[in-house]
Amino acid sequence: MKKQVYNFNAGPSVLPKSVLLQAQEELLDYQGEGMSIMEMSHRSAPFAALMAEVEQNLRQLMGIPQNYKTLFLQGGASLQFSMVPMNLLLPDGSADYIINGTWGQKAIKEAKKIGSARVVASTEDSNFDRLPDPQEMDFDANASYMHFTSNETIHGIQYKSEPASPAGVPVICDMSSDILSRPIDVSKYGLIYAGAQKNAGPSGVTLVIIREDLLDKVPDNMATMLDYRLQAAKNSLFNTPPSFSIYLLGLVLRWLISLGGLPAIAKLNEQKAQLLYQAIDDSGGFYHGHALPEYRSLMNVTFRMESADLESVFAKAALEQGMVGIKGHRSVGGLRASIYNACPIESIAALVDFMAEFQRKYG
Amino acid sequence: MKKQVYNFNAGPSVLPKSVLLQAQEELLDYQGEGMSIMEMSHRSAPFAALMAEVEQNLRQLMGIPQNYKTLFLQGGASLQFSMVPMNLLLPDGSADYIINGTWGQKAIKEAKKIGSARVVASTEDSNFDRLPDPQEMDFDANASYMHFTSNETIHGIQYKSEPASPAGVPVICDMSSDILSRPIDVSKYGLIYAGAQKNAGPSGVTLVIIREDLLDKVPDNMATMLDYRLQAAKNSLFNTPPSFSIYLLGLVLRWLISLGGLPAIAKLNEQKAQLLYQAIDDSGGFYHGHALPEYRSLMNVTFRMESADLESVFAKAALEQGMVGIKGHRSVGGLRASIYNACPIESIAALVDFMAEFQRKYG
Repeated sequence: MKKQVYNFNAGPSVLPKSVLLQAQEELLDYQGEGMSIMEMSHRSAPFAALMAEVEQNLRQLMGIPQNYKTLFLQGGASLQFSMVPMNLLLPDGSADYIINGTWGQKAIKEAKKIGSARVVASTEDSNFDRLPDPQEMDFDANASYMHFTSNETIHGIQYKSEPASPAGVPVICDMSSDILSRPIDVSKYGLIYAGAQKNAGPSGVTLVIIREDLLDKVPDNMATMLDYRLQAAKNSLFNTPPSFSIYLLGLVLRWLISLGGLPAIAKLNEQKAQLLYQAIDDSGGFYHGHALPEYRSLMNVTFRMESADLESVFAKAALEQGMVGIKGHRSVGGLRASIYNACPIESIAALVDFMAEFQRKYG
Repeated sequence: MKKQVYNFNAGPSVLPKSVLLQAQEELLDYQGEGMSIMEMSHRSAPFAALMAEVEQNLRQLMGIPQNYKTLFLQGGASLQFSMVPMNLLLPDGSADYIINGTWGQKAIKEAKKIGSARVVASTEDSNFDRLPDPQEMDFDANASYMHFTSNETIHGIQYKSEPASPAGVPVICDMSSDILSRPIDVSKYGLIYAGAQKNAGPSGVTLVIIREDLLDKVPDNMATMLDYRLQAAKNSLFNTPPSFSIYLLGLVLRWLISLGGLPAIAKLNEQKAQLLYQAIDDSGGFYHGHALPEYRSLMNVTFRMESADLESVFAKAALEQGMVGIKGHRSVGGLRASIYNACPIESIAALVDFMAEFQRKYG
């Protein structure tokens, strides 16, 4: 009998059960080929068909315009922190970064190793419990690009829509923790990147969606594997891709389509988050959110209790009930439930019940 | 009924059946945790235990000395072509490369983008059918490092032991296609790297074994993900690792240990290659090897027939018998059977039988 687990991990995180069941079923025999997908050449016809389907389904789900390339790379968002400025920070240029959490801080740190990068606005003063207001923004109208993080997993704050920025400056977004969780207008972006291991699949594959005209800005003589232009020209197959991770990503995309696409999953995500925030807000202060209400993330629900000791008791008791991943990120403490696409509403219902019970006992 | 396949793919390639069966069995429930390994945090206790076991088993199998670090990275050997010179090619230095095939050519091409790199010797004139002789070597005694490729998958030539090189010059080896296929003396190397998808597991994880004193040569201000020193300090967990690929690598390492380690697998690999080369040599010229006999690879057996047309007929007929991956690499043509660790001797026996039958029909 499999242990009952409610998986609130921040990434890698819960995957749709139907996806795992299909992967299990065909693990030794992919589509009747007599081999595992892991044993097949990345130059074979079945793998080429798989790559084409993954790209097509990603394009369909996100409404990616024709003038964008989709890349399937390795190294996670952390490697993109470097690849973005290596490819797109012009030699005499400067890049703008909005800093609303740890991931934005990490991104600008890597950019500064490559060239000039400015902070447009930061909410570090209030420990990233909010996003910057429009009037705080000190934009450079001539920036090589403007970078922001759509959802900060650690602090649990999220943009509802793209921040305003100067016309003509390409907008670049680290969308690792909310890609595919809701419809967005891709045409507003120059480049979107995301590690797959939250909403899109297992770890090991990184999505990059790039507007074609930006490929012209890539300097010559780049290291091949770090060169967006070359990776685009080779359809992400310059070398052996992370086949199994791409295959799983493909199953997740099919699952999203079967649910009704991004509008449908967005509605579910809102319901899930609403249930949990309501429990926090109705607790009379026993639980309180870290993020200010209007900036709350639908993906990562961060909350505190009156003491770190009580939070530890809570996390331990939750774990005993099978609730995994409730402890806040080691860098900030507190509690956090990550409720990405594949987190079933039943998990949130169980957590809400547990929170009420815990409050009756300790409140 | 699963189709009978004899998998001769050059990489990704055949995996041990017992490994795939175990992965299948625990795909939804890793060690009773109630989750897939793909759904678990890379900071969790079970994943930490997995990483520790993988490192320990790799060290045991290869006899890796204490003063070496083992890293589990992403991007394949192709990214290592750049990371090696980025980290270890000194600003005023020059690196030496022995070129005995396509992969060596690709490696030096990336190095030249970073700094100065010299060809020590090349066998391109004879289409890489041999390795350079010791007297052809034009070594730089002050090189930052000397790089070679232990096995060239495309041409099917392999070093039996390390090429001689000047004392004090760190030896760096792309061991992607023969790592773990035989015992080696790691202490002779400064750095060994290998994509996993031939002898060590599925694609998506890259092994790096580096002597600790070389970490001191890494320049400051490197892009974090490309910095050997930082990856070593963080035990390859600066960011989310390719969990599932590392897990599969771990199962392959356990399988190797269960077989008796590298001496045992080396003996099997010799028997397998001997069987196939014997069939080529006994064919009276109907089949002939690409590589000169003394340089023949035990991993990739390359052979030709009298015409490309006949080779096409052979490859097509072989495929109809379930023999996958027999066609030579698109860049050189001919025929190739890749017979890595996990390729069972039964596959080679089937191929040898088929070759004899084909010769009776077309010879």
